Amino acid sequence: MLPETLKWKNNKLFLLDQRDLPFNVRYAECGSAEDVARAIRNMTVRGAPAIGAAAAYGLAMAAASEDFEESAETLLASRPTDVNLSWAVERMRRLYHANAGMPRDQICRIMEAEAVKIHKEDIEINRKIGSFGQALLPENGTVITHCNAGALATAGYGTALGVFRAASEAGKKIKIYADETRPRLQGARLTAFELFADGFDVTVITDSMAAFLMSRRKIDAVVTGADRIAANGDTANKIGTYSLAVAARFHGVPFYIAAPLSTFDIKCASGADIPIEYRDGSEVRGLCGTRVLPDEIEVWNPSFDVTPADLITGIITERGVIRPPFAGSIRELLTEGAVTDEK
Amino acid sequence: MLPETLKWKNNKLFLLDQRDLPFNVRYAECGSAEDVARAIRNMTVRGAPAIGAAAAYGLAMAAASEDFEESAETLLASRPTDVNLSWAVERMRRLYHANAGMPRDQICRIMEAEAVKIHKEDIEINRKIGSFGQALLPENGTVITHCNAGALATAGYGTALGVFRAASEAGKKIKIYADETRPRLQGARLTAFELFADGFDVTVITDSMAAFLMSRRKIDAVVTGADRIAANGDTANKIGTYSLAVAARFHGVPFYIAAPLSTFDIKCASGADIPIEYRDGSEVRGLCGTRVLPDEIEVWNPSFDVTPADLITGIITERGVIRPPFAGSIRELLTEGAVTDEK
Repeated sequence: MLPETLKWKNNKLFLLDQRDLPFNVRYAECGSAEDVARAIRNMTVRGAPAIGAAAAYGLAMAAASEDFEESAETLLASRPTDVNLSWAVERMRRLYHANAGMPRDQICRIMEAEAVKIHKEDIEINRKIGSFGQALLPENGTVITHCNAGALATAGYGTALGVFRAASEAGKKIKIYADETRPRLQGARLTAFELFADGFDVTVITDSMAAFLMSRRKIDAVVTGADRIAANGDTANKIGTYSLAVAARFHGVPFYIAAPLSTFDIKCASGADIPIEYRDGSEVRGLCGTRVLPDEIEVWNPSFDVTPADLITGIITERGVIRPPFAGSIRELLTEGAVTDEK
Repeated sequence: MLPETLKWKNNKLFLLDQRDLPFNVRYAECGSAEDVARAIRNMTVRGAPAIGAAAAYGLAMAAASEDFEESAETLLASRPTDVNLSWAVERMRRLYHANAGMPRDQICRIMEAEAVKIHKEDIEINRKIGSFGQALLPENGTVITHCNAGALATAGYGTALGVFRAASEAGKKIKIYADETRPRLQGARLTAFELFADGFDVTVITDSMAAFLMSRRKIDAVVTGADRIAANGDTANKIGTYSLAVAARFHGVPFYIAAPLSTFDIKCASGADIPIEYRDGSEVRGLCGTRVLPDEIEVWNPSFDVTPADLITGIITERGVIRPPFAGSIRELLTEGAVTDEK
């Protein structure tokens, strides 16, 4: 059984430390919003929806202090590419200010209840994404995924991996290839761990093998998560997603993004407006403490890339699967609220 | 200064142990063909042309024993994908049998001289490849390479990296991005080490970043080596080469293979006839002794992939650059011997 990603107990947040997986299952205790921001920065918790839920709990804790706004800003700055983070922070912030006149302990209770709600909603949303997404997969299918868009990246169940979970619950047999996802190996360390724990048929490949795999075996779909989706459908996700999308296009393999509505950022007209986080070169210079490259040698280390909308076959959301042209379907999705081509 | 890849001294072969680079410069001593075969299998020496030269020295040592044929077979089996290996073994074998009537010590001297000749010829060949290849690069250029097709992969100078060396000798300024090349990281450990040692502007990226890099910066060319080239131009090279070729095609970046004539294997009509070596899953399950994946989780680990001829812009050989359609240009190259579109 997969351990829970986030636990809220006695007004503290316990985060499954994802840096130690798969060999150590350990929780990091966060007693303040600042603790949560640090855990986001150092990747104790990662995955856009999980970060959003963690930030909500962080602000539930901040509601007790005088420095609420400062805490909100610290959280917002902790990872620049994810938009679910700012979505959760803004939601908690609005609630805080709407209740500004209340006694402090009452504000705290309201904020705590809201964070718990965001946490639970995320799981429900993922189940809906799974239900819409699984309809896209055949009875016996082979898929590729990148990074970890699973229970470990969300409040539970997962977005891309939620699609595979739902397919399995629907009785389908899905063989999953997981890109190891350099430099931090979330695919090997987290996705393989998570899927293996839940009894899936999972095989790990290096990122460089996905294209060759597509040339040798029939791949029915590529499904990944997203960190931010622009108004035109351009999608920022873990570095390597773009390479996989290019390979999928070349081989005629459908390429799907699975993400909740909180991942859309219509303030970004296109991918060019999405800030890309560059992390320390030590991630590329080594691996889990083993160095392979001396410091004098330069590295380039973008944590995310942008997959242009025209490489995306469909975006699977909790309100259904949207299709190109995305500019229109995204606008409709976010305003109307019920665009489904499946179910 | 870069240490030598192979050294022949007192009838023994000393191989720079490439598994320990970049942090330890250490030579492995080979006193027999069996030692050389073991060094090829465990990747003490790697790179198709370097393996060919090492095998030639191995058979120079085997000439002194009764088990010449057995040694030749052991060497041939040490790595299935490289064809330079069987080219070198066949060349040494023919010479051995042609001199079968001679006294043993004379055969040994002849065989030793031939191995030294193969070693020296390889360096000369690489310089010619470099000279033809550098003409394809602009005065100020940015390139991507994969794995290590450098001095460390050959008897010296390198094939793909020889092209960059020749460009530099011609006064050109070339910025080089080196794919780290999972699972064994020859790009990070060897190519970056080699190019940095020789004063090049080199930046390491994970394999998954190359496509994104092409979308963000102007890349003038991709140049890689080859392990075997079929009669139709399909090329086997280190896993990840195909992914890079697909990305290059998508972005309109010219994709070149740099390889000596000994890499062509016209007995293989196409890439489908090239045997692909699958290595132990532990290579993917970890890195330099650090484990990231438990043994229960399945991995797929092809060491090579095949890039179809139609993704290749040109093949740079010691006789010039050949272009599509390759079936004709390869036949001409191997029979006529002077096909150049540059120089």
